[in-house]
Amino acid sequence: MVVTPWKVSGKVDYEKLIKKFGTQPLTKEILDKVKKYAGKLHFLLRRSFFFCHRDFDWILNFYESGGRFILYTGRGPSGPVHIGHILPWIFTKYLQDAFNAKLYFQMTDDEKFLIHHNFTIETSISYMYDNALDVIAIGFDKNKTKIISDVKNMGLMYKLTVKIAKHINFSVVRAVFGFEDSTNIGLIFFPAVQAAPCFLESELTGEAVPCLIPAAIDQDPYWRVARDIAPKLGYYKPAQIHSKFLPGLGREGKMSASEPETCIFTTDSPEVARRKVFNAFTGGQPTIAEQKKLGGVPEMCSVYHYLYWFFEQDDAKIKKVWGDCKSGRMLCGECKSILADKVEAFLREHQKRREKAKDIVEEYFLTNV
Amino acid sequence: MVVTPWKVSGKVDYEKLIKKFGTQPLTKEILDKVKKYAGKLHFLLRRSFFFCHRDFDWILNFYESGGRFILYTGRGPSGPVHIGHILPWIFTKYLQDAFNAKLYFQMTDDEKFLIHHNFTIETSISYMYDNALDVIAIGFDKNKTKIISDVKNMGLMYKLTVKIAKHINFSVVRAVFGFEDSTNIGLIFFPAVQAAPCFLESELTGEAVPCLIPAAIDQDPYWRVARDIAPKLGYYKPAQIHSKFLPGLGREGKMSASEPETCIFTTDSPEVARRKVFNAFTGGQPTIAEQKKLGGVPEMCSVYHYLYWFFEQDDAKIKKVWGDCKSGRMLCGECKSILADKVEAFLREHQKRREKAKDIVEEYFLTNV
Repeated sequence: MVVTPWKVSGKVDYEKLIKKFGTQPLTKEILDKVKKYAGKLHFLLRRSFFFCHRDFDWILNFYESGGRFILYTGRGPSGPVHIGHILPWIFTKYLQDAFNAKLYFQMTDDEKFLIHHNFTIETSISYMYDNALDVIAIGFDKNKTKIISDVKNMGLMYKLTVKIAKHINFSVVRAVFGFEDSTNIGLIFFPAVQAAPCFLESELTGEAVPCLIPAAIDQDPYWRVARDIAPKLGYYKPAQIHSKFLPGLGREGKMSASEPETCIFTTDSPEVARRKVFNAFTGGQPTIAEQKKLGGVPEMCSVYHYLYWFFEQDDAKIKKVWGDCKSGRMLCGECKSILADKVEAFLREHQKRREKAKDIVEEYFLTNV
Repeated sequence: MVVTPWKVSGKVDYEKLIKKFGTQPLTKEILDKVKKYAGKLHFLLRRSFFFCHRDFDWILNFYESGGRFILYTGRGPSGPVHIGHILPWIFTKYLQDAFNAKLYFQMTDDEKFLIHHNFTIETSISYMYDNALDVIAIGFDKNKTKIISDVKNMGLMYKLTVKIAKHINFSVVRAVFGFEDSTNIGLIFFPAVQAAPCFLESELTGEAVPCLIPAAIDQDPYWRVARDIAPKLGYYKPAQIHSKFLPGLGREGKMSASEPETCIFTTDSPEVARRKVFNAFTGGQPTIAEQKKLGGVPEMCSVYHYLYWFFEQDDAKIKKVWGDCKSGRMLCGECKSILADKVEAFLREHQKRREKAKDIVEEYFLTNV
């Protein structure tokens, strides 16, 4: 199992990650509080896609006593967006709505350029704009959402970023991120850039505003560094709520853009998406007869995972899918068809919103707070 | 002898520096060309204060064949400006006028904050504004001069800076600047920031414009790095013309703000400046009688150095001072008085311009090219 900001591979043991990273599991008390403010508990919480945290309980107490907090998440624009990327964004929108929170959404177009040998800066910027359309398509409130393109918007962040950078030395980034003598100085500086949005609201408004980061757990090393230096800057330590990874349509592991047949891109045509679903790895038996007799194995079925983690948010219905599969009542083809229809409906709607986003994308970028 | 961007100490052997840094001495052919365009040869060239170069001959040929070039110099705003700092700026203005060249003047307020443990970012920014007044007081053409505060103006530079940073790794900056594991990641990134203005005109206009850097020779390591990566970015290697250091009023070494009694700040009152001149180390004899008999030693006299390098630009007059000292005709008090009057006149005029600069300083900052 490898889980770093650059690589996730192997079968991820999330219990082990909680121990390794020193995070806290989400308690019933926390979930009850979220439910109280959101009206209902998001299926990604009910189903433990978001599964651990740091200081989320503290942030909720802060909110309960009348304080406000900001949300911060982001995306490294190194290619097209797939549905594994947007799952945490959908959850972030839920938090934005529930807590009326301002969101900083960082596009690390600088880092993606710096890390990919074959990228020009224009490649990065072009993906940044492309990916921003997906962010906007999620439906974030324009008046409470600031997209930060590091390349475009560093003007407003650089002062804070150098304040952060002064507290981080090479030993630290070597230990935390595995940087080497051959690492370029842009990447070495970058952890300061990724930490900056944690404190940007406080820095620019002069009001101490804590920050909650909903993101996949592979980004945790950045937040550990940010938490270490927060007190030195006089700001609150950023809180996190960590998600798992949406598995790919292949045998196992995180959905990855580098294996395009195993993930559904937001720009895939409905036909392409359907094909990918129908080619997916399932937990079905080799023959119809065996399937009817023995039932399927949804635990290891990527089609079931897709329904469970994304497309079938109704708990009763997903339970029925599980039972019908286990009992052999439902065959894989039928199940794939259910998923394909839902994926298609989702993509049609998302792509419509994505198209509309083209007219307003500039309005989302950070020009002030 | 130590000559690095952070420390200059000991008696500087400039011949040795030329060999050590691999630069070229200024030839008569180069000086003749400069004279042709400037009308007359600047006393800092006649007296070899600017004493070596890289590609200055190439830049002049480029100019002769109809090309334009930009000038780039700068200042690390870590304290008040003294007259040792502004000597290269005076020369830069001469080049600006002679070659009708646009000037980028970088204020490395980020670096000064990052390097000084006791600096807040506000300290740096405050010195940056203060020092910018001295830059403007030199009389640079407002329409052809862009002051870059890294902290204020990184918005326009960041994209270029990360392009540069991608080509520089930790091994290089460790070897060139002596960075260590304990060096903060802001300083590690900084060589890319200091390189950026070399290429900014080309980057932002899309026209390949070479750059000439008039600066003291201690900054040379930055330009060596910038020259190495220029071809990788598709830009011209920056050319340099290097100056010596104005000695202090003490026994030897560069004028240094950390020894305030040995240097004249641009904001010193005329009285304070006079006192410093009258307390200066001279090459005079212990008694008047001996001075009259043996003559003084202008080679080791800081008062003579000040006249020679700054305040007596008339060659015939400085020759007379030399002769009058050598022969014992002039006593130190008289010589100090000549210098003090000139320093006072200079400061009064400079401070008047400096005061006026307060109204227009914002107009000089980089907001576009």
